[in-house]
Amino acid sequence: MSSDQPELRRDSLSGRWVLIAPDRAKRPSDYRSARAAVSGRSRESCPFCPGRERETPPEIAAVRDIASAPDSTGWRIRVVPNKFPALIRPAEPSFSSPDEADGRARPGFGIHEVVIDGPDHDRDWDELPEGHLRDVLGVFRDRLRAIEREPSVRYIQVFKNKGGKAGASLRHPHTQILAMPVVPGQVRDEVEAQVRYGHSSGSCPGCRLIDEEETGPRLVCAGREFVALAPFASRFPYEIHVRPRRHAALFSALSDDDLAPLAATMKDVLRRLRAVAGDPAYHLVLRQAPVSSVSSEAGRSVSDFVHWRFELLPVLGVIAGFEWGTGCFINPVIPEKAAAALRLI
Amino acid sequence: MSSDQPELRRDSLSGRWVLIAPDRAKRPSDYRSARAAVSGRSRESCPFCPGRERETPPEIAAVRDIASAPDSTGWRIRVVPNKFPALIRPAEPSFSSPDEADGRARPGFGIHEVVIDGPDHDRDWDELPEGHLRDVLGVFRDRLRAIEREPSVRYIQVFKNKGGKAGASLRHPHTQILAMPVVPGQVRDEVEAQVRYGHSSGSCPGCRLIDEEETGPRLVCAGREFVALAPFASRFPYEIHVRPRRHAALFSALSDDDLAPLAATMKDVLRRLRAVAGDPAYHLVLRQAPVSSVSSEAGRSVSDFVHWRFELLPVLGVIAGFEWGTGCFINPVIPEKAAAALRLI
Repeated sequence: MSSDQPELRRDSLSGRWVLIAPDRAKRPSDYRSARAAVSGRSRESCPFCPGRERETPPEIAAVRDIASAPDSTGWRIRVVPNKFPALIRPAEPSFSSPDEADGRARPGFGIHEVVIDGPDHDRDWDELPEGHLRDVLGVFRDRLRAIEREPSVRYIQVFKNKGGKAGASLRHPHTQILAMPVVPGQVRDEVEAQVRYGHSSGSCPGCRLIDEEETGPRLVCAGREFVALAPFASRFPYEIHVRPRRHAALFSALSDDDLAPLAATMKDVLRRLRAVAGDPAYHLVLRQAPVSSVSSEAGRSVSDFVHWRFELLPVLGVIAGFEWGTGCFINPVIPEKAAAALRLI
Repeated sequence: MSSDQPELRRDSLSGRWVLIAPDRAKRPSDYRSARAAVSGRSRESCPFCPGRERETPPEIAAVRDIASAPDSTGWRIRVVPNKFPALIRPAEPSFSSPDEADGRARPGFGIHEVVIDGPDHDRDWDELPEGHLRDVLGVFRDRLRAIEREPSVRYIQVFKNKGGKAGASLRHPHTQILAMPVVPGQVRDEVEAQVRYGHSSGSCPGCRLIDEEETGPRLVCAGREFVALAPFASRFPYEIHVRPRRHAALFSALSDDDLAPLAATMKDVLRRLRAVAGDPAYHLVLRQAPVSSVSSEAGRSVSDFVHWRFELLPVLGVIAGFEWGTGCFINPVIPEKAAAALRLI
């Protein structure tokens, strides 16, 4: 954009329109937030703090001292079932993949786990040592590998809400894994668009995007293994997407060697966001391929042409009636200016 | 739902999945809000209050005393251009309807107007006399009829944000009209689904929905001309949709005689929401057909099978990472229980 006139931009994969409407009264750096606050429970009654392991359901997995017992202290990372699950695990282990076309309601079967990112009540990802964050990412990968084997699971969403404005009900840093028995329409539509693009161009749109954008005005930072970009049609001020250079449709494909570089990139991105936007509340969400058999032709297409990414979505405004009515977002910060501010840190 | 188990529900038109996940620790009536607050300007400096007409751009239309001059006091309803428009009117009057396929960015041309609903800084729709609200709805209709004639306009969104949590930056009751040069993807997809349904069944899905739901558990209230329902796949607690019984694709088709019954239904619905949910912040959004030539066959299908509605979307929670990641909403209040609570008022 040569000037600060409003511009409509379309995201090429989702087809979503975004209205980039700079508020001429403000500079990009005016979109700042006070430190993300959560009105939830204090350290004194936090069920995720060490010493209160019995207040969560029994742990599914943990990174802990070799001498320590499950559901006792001595852990660095814990995975537990969500105490208030949005979806519940099928009672019948034989519950199989249902046909999506067969009706408009179905039982809310699924799996809902919480990863407690560390023992410290106040230290979020950008303040964790890089080695600790590497292990958190490794726990995600291992849980996803396990959950992908469950027969009823069609899509796995990993997401983190930081700050009360982002919907976090507990301050203690944690991430959620929610495995669903359906592929959400928004995900399915994007996968179909990626596969169409892949078949017509012969290449993965995610790989191509990295090639095209890495030298352009929307680059935030690039490492040897991972690249962070401000999307052309960013919905939110300072929205950042992180993608692996090496093509992969699923997060679970990460190798052990990938984990440390990914941790370094995530820490770098969060540090830049904090410096520019003042430690805002945010959502971090994983976008990846549905869980599907890679032995079918459709499965191979999905593997070849869907490229996983993390989306970092800062909460610096309110989603209002226009967005709900149209699905079209209004973003007051021009993505190229957001990227420039984030690069300079 | 026979019990409080989570259930996945699909909206038949949008294809959107919603996870109805009752929080068993709470009753529906626990989803209440303090009176919707706006941190915006007080009455003393409000640009929408009588006596400060010069602080807005010159008025486009008004309902005012016959002896009063434009941009002076003596009005009951004013329409002004948005001082901070998200879209701007084309400089060239010949600007014509662009082809949506031709690229991923375009200038943000359009029209952005504000309807100041009344002179009183504090009286929102549910507190306005019915005759006043009837006139507000008449102003919407007349502005839509005028804007539909503009050559570049493809879709018109009418929306109202009440309360700071809903994104209102000014407390003084007002409604926005935003005319866009594109049809948002979400709207287009739903229109296509309605037309497909219409062609296969021979009837409008909106008309059919009213017939089916009016005697069922999701009815909120029904008048002679308008019906208010809790949607089967409600995204938000206490979400309510209001539809005209008489089929119409566009809000601008309302007759003079329709306005008073619509005002009565809207007041009734807002009164019920306040009684059950404690005067929450909300979005009110219009969903209608795109602006298109009705002389074409496609235009006739749209006219026949798209049925306009108001969506009342209370803000009683936070949209979190899961929703942004998947497009699938989590709603903790079962729609049938929401409707039952709203009916009992």
